[in-house]
Amino acid sequence: MRAIDWFQSDQGGLGYISLIDQTLLPDALTTLQIRTVDELIECIQRLAVRGAPALGVAGAMGVALAAQNGNTVTARADALRLRVSRPTAVNLAWGVDQALEALERGTQAVLTVALSIRDQDVIGSHAMAKRGYELLADLLPEKMASGLNLLTICNTGALAAVERGTALGVIEEVFLRGNLKNVFACETRPLFQGARLTAWELSNMGAPHQTIVDSAANFLMAQGRVDAVLVGADRITANGDTANKIGTFSLALGAQFAGIPFIVVAPETTIDCETATGDLIDIEDRGTEEVVVINGKVMSPAGTTSVNPAFDVTPARLISAIVTDQRAIRPALNELPSDEVANEMTATFRF
Amino acid sequence: MRAIDWFQSDQGGLGYISLIDQTLLPDALTTLQIRTVDELIECIQRLAVRGAPALGVAGAMGVALAAQNGNTVTARADALRLRVSRPTAVNLAWGVDQALEALERGTQAVLTVALSIRDQDVIGSHAMAKRGYELLADLLPEKMASGLNLLTICNTGALAAVERGTALGVIEEVFLRGNLKNVFACETRPLFQGARLTAWELSNMGAPHQTIVDSAANFLMAQGRVDAVLVGADRITANGDTANKIGTFSLALGAQFAGIPFIVVAPETTIDCETATGDLIDIEDRGTEEVVVINGKVMSPAGTTSVNPAFDVTPARLISAIVTDQRAIRPALNELPSDEVANEMTATFRF
Repeated sequence: MRAIDWFQSDQGGLGYISLIDQTLLPDALTTLQIRTVDELIECIQRLAVRGAPALGVAGAMGVALAAQNGNTVTARADALRLRVSRPTAVNLAWGVDQALEALERGTQAVLTVALSIRDQDVIGSHAMAKRGYELLADLLPEKMASGLNLLTICNTGALAAVERGTALGVIEEVFLRGNLKNVFACETRPLFQGARLTAWELSNMGAPHQTIVDSAANFLMAQGRVDAVLVGADRITANGDTANKIGTFSLALGAQFAGIPFIVVAPETTIDCETATGDLIDIEDRGTEEVVVINGKVMSPAGTTSVNPAFDVTPARLISAIVTDQRAIRPALNELPSDEVANEMTATFRF
Repeated sequence: MRAIDWFQSDQGGLGYISLIDQTLLPDALTTLQIRTVDELIECIQRLAVRGAPALGVAGAMGVALAAQNGNTVTARADALRLRVSRPTAVNLAWGVDQALEALERGTQAVLTVALSIRDQDVIGSHAMAKRGYELLADLLPEKMASGLNLLTICNTGALAAVERGTALGVIEEVFLRGNLKNVFACETRPLFQGARLTAWELSNMGAPHQTIVDSAANFLMAQGRVDAVLVGADRITANGDTANKIGTFSLALGAQFAGIPFIVVAPETTIDCETATGDLIDIEDRGTEEVVVINGKVMSPAGTTSVNPAFDVTPARLISAIVTDQRAIRPALNELPSDEVANEMTATFRF
């Protein structure tokens, strides 16, 4: 079952988006049928569907919904509302824009673009998994035989994409090839995507793992218990600065202190060369309730408010490598995503 | 009301410990009357009483309970069980040892020691608050007028001591003198002492504050929204390495990156010159359940286990200053807690 997919309905030939409601995992595996842009926006905002690659697919498929449900004027208006329903991940806006370019050619043309984005996401995930594995083998040759201890945050697996995912896709590849000793999954406050979703995916794989509170990660690294950190990305700017789930920047500081690789895994569509540096990224603040209310219980005294940035920005110089479906870029060695030389995939990638 | 205190009962002249059950805050303010060492150990292990200074007082008062409830043989055995009921904070063992030295002289002598430790804790807390304030005024003179943005983790206020506390005692002093703009209180997973206890104390003071997930702290620092980080300590070794609540080390990395002071506030009794360096400290792992079960709900798939170190160790070189009831030590400038020169309080402390 895919985290997000498109099906043609038997009701008058209209299609719909099928997506796993990620807010209910790991307790229940429930799929939703989404037939309108308003339903999709609601799912995106409450994080029933999340993850940068999945949001790219959702954006394009949402335009297909808009196209089949109205004329080009209403469809464009719907698409533009969808485009800004979450601000930080560039993939959502990118997916909408790709599909919108086909709008004048009709619903089928929009759908063709959306399905192509879906299929490219699958192909790209497998390419990232393979390239990420090869990078780890290059960086940590002596550790591969005894098995890698890897650390990750949030959920970057199949649930964050169509299949396989980004950072967790690399970890799955390490596991499938017999080189994984253990995964430390940061629980990922405030919404516990690590404790809920990543632990669920790793359990389903049968891969060895333990959850940790986010604040324990850097201490485990300093104790020598982690060989590499792998994370996803929501937006990578032209200079290599990377926005990702809150806590990612802190992990990069821990990896630097411990002297271990810090690797970002993301499709090319996450790279936003229109934005020069990370301080220009719009960081979504999701408000007090997500922080203060847990499982229905208010944790703090009445009236307590929270600062709740959903993402942070990791400076490029703290990033050992960005692995995409096309290439590996080494920001710590001053390679830039916008650099044409770095655009060529290096078959003999070395740190 | 004090977090921990001693009262003479009208029942045959026996005394008891009165303590606030901190597991019930902020929902309910409940005091417990503790009459046996077994009850006290249970309170310590389930964190009804916690915080290094409070544990020192609890240790000494617990020996007084043991002395009044039995003979010196049974009292010593009880005291030694109490001494190891939590391993990381040195204050608990120190309090037990201080009181045990008086055991041969009888219950009243033990109680006199315990009450002295209680009273010294109060005096020491006020001394730390004053010295910490002066240190901040020295370090950040231009910020004092406009108001300081301070960040802290866990609970280090009156609830962690007899009165006032350590790091939060300094923050209270800053507030009382009109120099506080805002406090960012890290929620402090897994047990939310920040969200529950520190937010409660700051609310009671009327001090401006916001809670954050622990992993957001370093990003706020990097954004320039924090002027200084203040934390408590559970054990400070001879070289200045400091064990404190898990997440503290990560904050020190964030403060270093942001170029802001990282200040440890703890009584002299937290300094353990018998232990040379931080890697020799026994770090308590409190198991899976604390991480995985929140408000009665299991967050992860069945069978998920966690690594759950309750504390971490911050290397001395990342610590701008250790403020005690006696002195200020600057580990980042190679001053050592075991250094006689540093033992002298410097009236004109400068960074």
